Amino acid sequence: MMHSNQYFPDVNKIEFEGRDSNNPLAFTWYDESRIVAGQPMKEHLRYAVAYWHSFYNENGDPFGAGTRIFPWDRSSNPLDNAKYRLDAAFEFFSKLGNPFYCFHDRDLAPEGDSVAESEKNLKELVSLAAQYQKETGLKLLWGTANLFSHPRYMNGAATNPDFDVVCHAGAQVKAALEATVELGGENYVFWGGREGYTHLFNTRMKRERDNLGHFLRAARDYGRSIGFNGNFLIEPKPMEPTKQQYDFDAATVIGFLREQDLLDDFKLNIEGNHATLAGHSFAHDLTVASEAGLLGSIDANRGDNQNGWDTDYFPTDLRDAVEAMIVVLENGGIAPGGLNFDAKIRRNSTDPKDLFYAHIGGMDTFARALIIANNIINDPLYAELRDGRYQSFESGEGKAFKEGNRSLEQLRDRAASIGEPARLSGRQELLENLFNRQMM
Amino acid sequence: MMHSNQYFPDVNKIEFEGRDSNNPLAFTWYDESRIVAGQPMKEHLRYAVAYWHSFYNENGDPFGAGTRIFPWDRSSNPLDNAKYRLDAAFEFFSKLGNPFYCFHDRDLAPEGDSVAESEKNLKELVSLAAQYQKETGLKLLWGTANLFSHPRYMNGAATNPDFDVVCHAGAQVKAALEATVELGGENYVFWGGREGYTHLFNTRMKRERDNLGHFLRAARDYGRSIGFNGNFLIEPKPMEPTKQQYDFDAATVIGFLREQDLLDDFKLNIEGNHATLAGHSFAHDLTVASEAGLLGSIDANRGDNQNGWDTDYFPTDLRDAVEAMIVVLENGGIAPGGLNFDAKIRRNSTDPKDLFYAHIGGMDTFARALIIANNIINDPLYAELRDGRYQSFESGEGKAFKEGNRSLEQLRDRAASIGEPARLSGRQELLENLFNRQMM
Amino acid sequence: MMHSNQYFPDVNKIEFEGRDSNNPLAFTWYDESRIVAGQPMKEHLRYAVAYWHSFYNENGDPFGAGTRIFPWDRSSNPLDNAKYRLDAAFEFFSKLGNPFYCFHDRDLAPEGDSVAESEKNLKELVSLAAQYQKETGLKLLWGTANLFSHPRYMNGAATNPDFDVVCHAGAQVKAALEATVELGGENYVFWGGREGYTHLFNTRMKRERDNLGHFLRAARDYGRSIGFNGNFLIEPKPMEPTKQQYDFDAATVIGFLREQDLLDDFKLNIEGNHATLAGHSFAHDLTVASEAGLLGSIDANRGDNQNGWDTDYFPTDLRDAVEAMIVVLENGGIAPGGLNFDAKIRRNSTDPKDLFYAHIGGMDTFARALIIANNIINDPLYAELRDGRYQSFESGEGKAFKEGNRSLEQLRDRAASIGEPARLSGRQELLENLFNRQMM
Amino acid sequence: MMHSNQYFPDVNKIEFEGRDSNNPLAFTWYDESRIVAGQPMKEHLRYAVAYWHSFYNENGDPFGAGTRIFPWDRSSNPLDNAKYRLDAAFEFFSKLGNPFYCFHDRDLAPEGDSVAESEKNLKELVSLAAQYQKETGLKLLWGTANLFSHPRYMNGAATNPDFDVVCHAGAQVKAALEATVELGGENYVFWGGREGYTHLFNTRMKRERDNLGHFLRAARDYGRSIGFNGNFLIEPKPMEPTKQQYDFDAATVIGFLREQDLLDDFKLNIEGNHATLAGHSFAHDLTVASEAGLLGSIDANRGDNQNGWDTDYFPTDLRDAVEAMIVVLENGGIAPGGLNFDAKIRRNSTDPKDLFYAHIGGMDTFARALIIANNIINDPLYAELRDGRYQSFESGEGKAFKEGNRSLEQLRDRAASIGEPARLSGRQELLENLFNRQMM
Repeated sequence: MMHSNQYFPDVNKIEFEGRDSNNPLAFTWYDESRIVAGQPMKEHLRYAVAYWHSFYNENGDPFGAGTRIFPWDRSSNPLDNAKYRLDAAFEFFSKLGNPFYCFHDRDLAPEGDSVAESEKNLKELVSLAAQYQKETGLKLLWGTANLFSHPRYMNGAATNPDFDVVCHAGAQVKAALEATVELGGENYVFWGGREGYTHLFNTRMKRERDNLGHFLRAARDYGRSIGFNGNFLIEPKPMEPTKQQYDFDAATVIGFLREQDLLDDFKLNIEGNHATLAGHSFAHDLTVASEAGLLGSIDANRGDNQNGWDTDYFPTDLRDAVEAMIVVLENGGIAPGGLNFDAKIRRNSTDPKDLFYAHIGGMDTFARALIIANNIINDPLYAELRDGRYQSFESGEGKAFKEGNRSLEQLRDRAASIGEPARLSGRQELLENLFNRQMM
Repeated sequence: MMHSNQYFPDVNKIEFEGRDSNNPLAFTWYDESRIVAGQPMKEHLRYAVAYWHSFYNENGDPFGAGTRIFPWDRSSNPLDNAKYRLDAAFEFFSKLGNPFYCFHDRDLAPEGDSVAESEKNLKELVSLAAQYQKETGLKLLWGTANLFSHPRYMNGAATNPDFDVVCHAGAQVKAALEATVELGGENYVFWGGREGYTHLFNTRMKRERDNLGHFLRAARDYGRSIGFNGNFLIEPKPMEPTKQQYDFDAATVIGFLREQDLLDDFKLNIEGNHATLAGHSFAHDLTVASEAGLLGSIDANRGDNQNGWDTDYFPTDLRDAVEAMIVVLENGGIAPGGLNFDAKIRRNSTDPKDLFYAHIGGMDTFARALIIANNIINDPLYAELRDGRYQSFESGEGKAFKEGNRSLEQLRDRAASIGEPARLSGRQELLENLFNRQMM
Repeated sequence: MMHSNQYFPDVNKIEFEGRDSNNPLAFTWYDESRIVAGQPMKEHLRYAVAYWHSFYNENGDPFGAGTRIFPWDRSSNPLDNAKYRLDAAFEFFSKLGNPFYCFHDRDLAPEGDSVAESEKNLKELVSLAAQYQKETGLKLLWGTANLFSHPRYMNGAATNPDFDVVCHAGAQVKAALEATVELGGENYVFWGGREGYTHLFNTRMKRERDNLGHFLRAARDYGRSIGFNGNFLIEPKPMEPTKQQYDFDAATVIGFLREQDLLDDFKLNIEGNHATLAGHSFAHDLTVASEAGLLGSIDANRGDNQNGWDTDYFPTDLRDAVEAMIVVLENGGIAPGGLNFDAKIRRNSTDPKDLFYAHIGGMDTFARALIIANNIINDPLYAELRDGRYQSFESGEGKAFKEGNRSLEQLRDRAASIGEPARLSGRQELLENLFNRQMM
Repeated sequence: MMHSNQYFPDVNKIEFEGRDSNNPLAFTWYDESRIVAGQPMKEHLRYAVAYWHSFYNENGDPFGAGTRIFPWDRSSNPLDNAKYRLDAAFEFFSKLGNPFYCFHDRDLAPEGDSVAESEKNLKELVSLAAQYQKETGLKLLWGTANLFSHPRYMNGAATNPDFDVVCHAGAQVKAALEATVELGGENYVFWGGREGYTHLFNTRMKRERDNLGHFLRAARDYGRSIGFNGNFLIEPKPMEPTKQQYDFDAATVIGFLREQDLLDDFKLNIEGNHATLAGHSFAHDLTVASEAGLLGSIDANRGDNQNGWDTDYFPTDLRDAVEAMIVVLENGGIAPGGLNFDAKIRRNSTDPKDLFYAHIGGMDTFARALIIANNIINDPLYAELRDGRYQSFESGEGKAFKEGNRSLEQLRDRAASIGEPARLSGRQELLENLFNRQMM
């Protein structure tokens, strides 16, 4: 039952050819077995392809219908097409060489006319995917349930003011958890695209957020009961499609998890474009999650600095990627999470090869970034410019303060005795040059 | 020692004259003794004037020197001028009729050449202010320490990587707490304008945030030890002057307080312009604070929807004010906090009367907003459009879910049995019309 | 052939009932025959309903399928449904009482399998619409061609790098112009949703902009040849769906029209939400157009101050509306343009009555705004605060300068002689209070 | 009278050492005599240092006083300090090796108590600067007048509603033009920081913009009369310090110059940070200016993607610089303009060497960018991906359209005959990979 070679017949296996290659269908930096910081690139980066953007999304936008032509839409039967799509996806994965993929229930299998039929459809596709995984060695980074596309979720899924809708959300998550377990998924993700409000004053946030807590606990309990041992992940996003979402950014989600006593089972899936929509840099939200011990996985994409919506560009900005990989390396790696390309080709990228170019670009960017980030971390100047600034807290009174042992009176008395402190440069320009010298 | 009548000689006491008045130096809506929702306006609104913007800020901006001419700068001795300024401020307060004011240590009294001299200067002014308060009946809503203007804080105050600077911050807070207690201040505010970073990669956020926790506990302990019984307040702001501040928004600060176990003593001071800079509406951040039981006080101002910095306009947008007052009324009021006009007249508002026009505008806007907000809250349609949406959680399985007693399997089974839920309108347009009919 | 009463059977004709009415299906401010500034409200406001948002748009968004259920989709034949839709639309118009409507070719009639079939479909619907117009007295404010939804336009319409696509755009505009003429449309609009780029470096802007000029001249010539005597209008928008659009804002479009020598035939259609996406206030872009003598028509809607995409909310912000109406009144009215509600009900507004609430809200808001704007314009303080500031240019050397008769040396010599100018207050706070007193 | 070696005694001449150098006070890419595209780097890049940010700006911000300690402030006499400052600047220039500098009148010489005294101060410093220039070979890229810092300009300079202020602006520009001519300045710049409004409704834009036209013509005439043969440049910026500025962006300024018939003498000075504040990429505004034949010079800096004000970071983003240099190379170079570092070190960069690090970083970034941009331009794939898309306009009917010779009927008939066009990919991902391969 090996996947076919019919959907991307013009493309062979993408190989590493090095930076002097002119072959646009080759990697110039991503050499999966190259050792960096003691590990092969492949294990550092743990790349995943996003099923929805690559195989399900026709690239419509609010002003126009989709432009992509899907050769796997061969039939008028959605379930059949789902199988062709799976076949095409595994052809793509095998040619690209990504070790992981991710999916929503509804991009893998079509919704049926009833909960039972939807479950049946999903089971059928999961069973097929399991065979493909076995044959190819590809793994599932995470599964999730699409609780935002169906009209029923227009007022929210777990936070819907109508309990009946909450039940449907529960049905989907139950089935998606089962699918994730069956496929050996290492994580399970919640992205609450409709968990927010369109108008603050027809909404009771506290009620809705508390309901979200109940829902997540129910999901956690069910997942654990069927043998899911991985991380549950929440993916922050500040707005869009709702006016304001509850999972605004990393700090907000961490606060929510602590409030709801969910820190033992839940971590964060940080997306670049979502961080920038929230007014943060990608690296900032990664750092917030990492410092809390809650960096679970990454959606590797980027936004548009001039546009205020979720563009989901492929992550081709080297600087962003370097900053992200510094956080990942200092985090001790991203496993059992990975880097999932939650990114879509442009609406006018209608050549089937564009999907390869896009992923090659993202994979080369982060591979190069990994090398650079490791070089930066190992540059003694970096430690001096960052950790070196805090030496006053390593001994004496500063250390006592850091340990919580200094009163306001003691601080005041020391200030009175030392006089005006020196104005110590933050040396940001030197730091930027250090980064640039490694990057250029 | 009654305050003089020399700084605003052309202005008499501002009186309420009603909406038909053409007198620009009169209130048209703020009638301090009018009863709304069982209380006089004055007690609902608890207006405060901000000492810094009104009496200390010369209205310079990044591209130009200050434009205001301060008649109270009569001497070459800063300490003498501080006394003239205090006299001018109380003349203004008495004519305006605000019940409260707020200050930073450094706008009340000049920094000296040493910690001891700064303390002495502050004590001298506090003593004088106490007399003015006694004579006029005016009260101090809150005091605070300016930990952002002096160059020494360029790398942070409580979060500075140099412990010596932390000590100076401690000295200022100690003195400012003493001043607040002596003047009967009902709250004490921390605004961390420099508590953040200019570059993520020369910074260790976790170290700095933990130091902030130590600092706040030390301040809390000292404040309680000298008899301060009011709320400590943290004022969120996302950015500016730093690239990214730790107290980003209400949710972030609440998460921090919970993490640092500070919820018993600290609440939030929410500012309109800071909320919008963080990507929220003013009402959103007020609601987040209120729902957590942590709405402490309000800085009433507004930003500019087209400009991306802290414009600190006076709060003259009625809609924003109505939304804010709905939250305040549903919160059970804002006391012991208040509405502090953390707002500045425009750089080209150089007529001394402009300061009166500005405050009259803000006070009339919120007075009108209070009336409207109360009308909205009491309109049965409002309850129907808001709370009415959640009726499915008031009984049966929905209620069981709300109480945490439904498993994912139970949700799934119910979904399977009920079929597709109805698509219940959120009725946002009707809600907006309800608001507008009260406002127009 | 009078339109039916079957699509909105629960709604009767919307009547003016005054501000004390509690009837949500009545106007509280829009009294079409009330005289303001010498004219009935109806003639000042010239309200139009947008066919697409109200009758064609199912309210899908980038994350979900449409939620609206259209009772006029009764058949599997799109052409039949187009006729039912037209019937529903005229039922709605007649009940609402708007004097105008606007449409795109494709919302009125479905695209066929060929250019000829598309033309035939459109003609058929136009013929039907002409009958409805005759029977109801409703008029067409403007027609336009949808050159953005079809996948063929993904790289642009008039600015497409493929000439074949330009030809298709030409075919649509030709037919849409004919339709507009047949229906007595008073204006014809171009909105270039795809006229821009997704990546600057696969684009030659100058080539594309010059092609746009050729295209517009061809359209102008054809329109004039078939008897179209109205204004051609360009509707600026800065971005979305493309990364950057050529018709960025009013100033950019005016510069383009001047460069391309199109000022005699083209004016601007200014939309509120587009102005704010470009970093301007609605009133700013209206003023730019008006001062150039090029304010042609208005798309009355508003954006979301916290969201960075085209939300197309109904225009319920009174302040924005007042500012807009001041510009309109000072412009001498908006005719032969009008106020078109290019606005959509929220995705979760699924009650058929929501469409009425939405329009009632917009119409009442602008009616109230008209009254207020007229009051402000007639307040002597307004003239003093605005025009009064320029009195130094009304005589003497200032007048000479204004007329272009002062050299730099003369300016210098006068400066040397007069010494330091007074710092004249801009009195912004007083102006804001003047506005608020009229609004509150 | 050679400049001293006393202000930066720890720094020697900055030399090119190549990319393997670890010396932070060396260039790794900027090798001024290296030939790229037929010219030495130095002549491509024409680097200038901005006098104000580097030698005059103490790095205060809206929330705090300046942090820099200027060793050239040796006296209590501002005129003496201006001379020491000049000496320090030329020490810096000589060590850095920049071929150009730029200044405002007021950073070069202090304002006096009268127009005459200000002129005298400026003349004295200009005379001194002329000697330094002669001795060092350094040149003046452009001069300008600071018409924004003094309080008198709070309501505008050339657009002030008070003619007396316009005269003072004229006096300053007259003197600054004379200074520019005497120092052989190759350009003269207008940045209208106060030419805009703080409130639309106390403003008459048209009057103010027309006055700006009169003012610019008077300046042009005077400049030409005293022998200034260079370009006059306008520097667009959308907002800050005013709410909305008249010179919003490149397109707006070009439209204004055409309207006012100033295209023969005026070009644009494009700044990176100003472009992004206006919602454009740096390369976009450069392209708009270049395509109009109006790219005069560049202010090389960058903004902060998360902050909404003018951060004036040094331009260390390689991607932005590459895009800029592609435009410059396709423009045929930037001369007689140059790349002026209108950028400031961070507020907490208090080490005197930080000023060197900052400029080295900017100079290396653009040097590297020049090499990469040249490589991209010479890659045949680039031409294919960009110009190749327009081949349908190179012959036949497409060519006829491009030349303005196709009617709407002809377009329609061709569309009817050709059927549905192919969906040609824009191949953005391949283009991005092309860029990245050159950059990584």
